[in-house]
Amino acid sequence: MISNWMDGVESDIVRLTAHPYAGTPVGDVLDWAVASKGKRIRPMLLILCSQYGPGHEESRNRLTLLAAMTEITHLASLIHDDIVDEAPLRRDRQSVQRRFGKDAAVYAGDFLIARVHYFQAQEKLHESGMILADAIGQMCAGEIGQARCRYREDVTMQEYLCNIRGKTTALFRAACRIGATESGCSPAVIEQLDKFGETLGCLFQFRDDLLDFTTDRAELGKETHKDFRDGIYTLPVILAMRNPEAREKLLPLMQENRAGELGCEQIREMETIVREFGGTDAAAGEIRRYGQHCKEILGGLPANEASAMLAKIVNKCMQV
Amino acid sequence: MISNWMDGVESDIVRLTAHPYAGTPVGDVLDWAVASKGKRIRPMLLILCSQYGPGHEESRNRLTLLAAMTEITHLASLIHDDIVDEAPLRRDRQSVQRRFGKDAAVYAGDFLIARVHYFQAQEKLHESGMILADAIGQMCAGEIGQARCRYREDVTMQEYLCNIRGKTTALFRAACRIGATESGCSPAVIEQLDKFGETLGCLFQFRDDLLDFTTDRAELGKETHKDFRDGIYTLPVILAMRNPEAREKLLPLMQENRAGELGCEQIREMETIVREFGGTDAAAGEIRRYGQHCKEILGGLPANEASAMLAKIVNKCMQV
Repeated sequence: MISNWMDGVESDIVRLTAHPYAGTPVGDVLDWAVASKGKRIRPMLLILCSQYGPGHEESRNRLTLLAAMTEITHLASLIHDDIVDEAPLRRDRQSVQRRFGKDAAVYAGDFLIARVHYFQAQEKLHESGMILADAIGQMCAGEIGQARCRYREDVTMQEYLCNIRGKTTALFRAACRIGATESGCSPAVIEQLDKFGETLGCLFQFRDDLLDFTTDRAELGKETHKDFRDGIYTLPVILAMRNPEAREKLLPLMQENRAGELGCEQIREMETIVREFGGTDAAAGEIRRYGQHCKEILGGLPANEASAMLAKIVNKCMQV
Repeated sequence: MISNWMDGVESDIVRLTAHPYAGTPVGDVLDWAVASKGKRIRPMLLILCSQYGPGHEESRNRLTLLAAMTEITHLASLIHDDIVDEAPLRRDRQSVQRRFGKDAAVYAGDFLIARVHYFQAQEKLHESGMILADAIGQMCAGEIGQARCRYREDVTMQEYLCNIRGKTTALFRAACRIGATESGCSPAVIEQLDKFGETLGCLFQFRDDLLDFTTDRAELGKETHKDFRDGIYTLPVILAMRNPEAREKLLPLMQENRAGELGCEQIREMETIVREFGGTDAAAGEIRRYGQHCKEILGGLPANEASAMLAKIVNKCMQV
C-alpha cells in the first residue's frame, strides 16, 4: 500500500525537521516554516518510481527518508521564493517572510537545507545526495535565469524552457531518479523514469502558468497574474507573442509594465489579447502533448500499482 | 609550508565553484558571487589545526577540499547576510544583491551551498559533512535569534553570546574540528581545538563589534554603527547598559531607534555614552580575557609551525 509508505515519509519529515530550539523565538520560526503542508507530489513521485525496482522493499527506510528530504528541499525553496516574491501568503497561511521578516525566512530556508545534508551525510546517502545537490544547483540556476529574463519582451520559448527545467523540473527529475536508483532499477528504466519526471515537471509548470489565464475570477484582484506583473512572461504569453498582431498589442503593455504598475484594466486587456490570439489554446495544446508523452513513457514500463497512480497524477496535471 | 597548503585551498575553491553557465546571465551572477576574496581565516584555521594530527600529510587532498568548502560556506552566508542587511558593498565591491537583485543573491548563495554538498557526497566526506551541516544549522539559528532580538532594549549578555555562538563561532569551531578530526588527532586534542575555535570565534566577533566604536572617523556617515541603527545591540552597548545611569540615557535613544531612523547627532551621543560609561573598555577587557584563553589552549598543545601561526592570528584578533 502506497499510503503506508507516505505515512513513513510524513514521520521522516517530522524527524528530519526536529530541532533543539523548541519554545524559543528560533523554534517558533522553524515550526512555522515546516507546518505548511503541500500536496507532497515530489515525495510521492519518488516512492512511486521506486516501486519499479526489485529492491524497493529492502530499501524502504532509505526511500522514505529520501522522499522526506526531497519534500523538505521543496519546502526550503518555497520559503526562499516567497522572499523574492514578497508573497504575503503560502498555502493560505502567512509566509515566513511576512510573519517573521526577511532575515528569518532566509535562514529558515538555509536551516532546512542544512538538516537535509546533515542526515544525508549521517546515513551515507552519497549517490542520492549527489542527485539532490545537483538538482538544487539547477533549481538555483533556473531561478537566477528567470530573474535575469524579467521584463524582457523578447524572452524566447527556449529561455522559458531552460528556466523552468531548472526551477521546476530539476526536482521532479531528481525525485524520480532517486526512487529508481535506490530501488535498483536497470539503467534503462532509470533513464525512462528520469525522462518521465522531466516531462511531468514541464507539464506541471505549464498548467500552473495556464491556470492564471483560465481560472474564472469575478474580479481581477491585485494578486491575479502576479507573474505578468512581476515581468515573468510565461507560456501563454510567449505563445501569443508568436502572432505579429498580438505582439503589436502586447508590446506597449509590457513596456508600461516595465516602467510601472499596470492597472486592473490593463491586466484584463492583456488577458484578452493572450486568449484571443490563441496563447491559452496553444498552451493547452502543449499540456496535452506533454501529458501524452508522459503516458507513452508509462506505457513502456511494466504495469503495477505505481503505474496506475502515476497515470492518475498525469491526468490531474492535464486538467485545465 | 602552510602557504603551499593554502595554494591548494585556492585551487579547490576554483574547482568547487566552477559551473556550466559561463557566458550566460546565470554565469555572470555566480562569477561575481565568488570573485570576492576575504582573509580566508576559516580555511586557514582548518589547515593549521590539521597540522596537529599524525595523518595530515596523507589526508592533504581531503583537507584542502574541506577547507575550500568551509570558505565557500562562509561566502554563501555573506551573500545571504547582504540580502538581509541590504548592504550595497561587500569587500569594496557591489554586493550580489545590489548588483543583480535580491532574487539572484538568494539563489547564488543556495547554489554555492549545493555545490559544497555535491562534492561532499561525491568524495564521501560524511563525518566532516555532518560537522559542517551542523555548523550551518547553528549559524542559521544564531542569525534568526539575532533577528528576533532586534530593537529589544532588554537583550541580555546571554542572548548575545548565544546568537554569536551560532552566527560566528559555529563555523570557526567546525573548521578547527574538521582539521583535527580528518588528520587523526586524539579525542582530547580534537576537543581542545574545538574549544580554541569557539573562543577565537567569540574574540573575532567581539573585536568586530568593538571596531564600530573605536575606529576613528572624521565624520559619522550613514554606514557607521550599522548594527545599532538596525537594532542589533552588540557587546559594548550591552556592557554599558549594565550601568544604571548609562541605561537611563541609552533607553530613550533605543526607543527612538525602534520608532524611526536616528540622526548622526544621536548616533554620536550613543557612542559617547557607551564609551563614557565603560562599555568600550569592558569590551576590550573581554577581548583580552578571551585572547588569553586562546593562548592558554595553544600552550597546552605541542609547539609547531601551526601553533606559532595560530598565536599570530590570536594576537591580530586582540588588536583593537
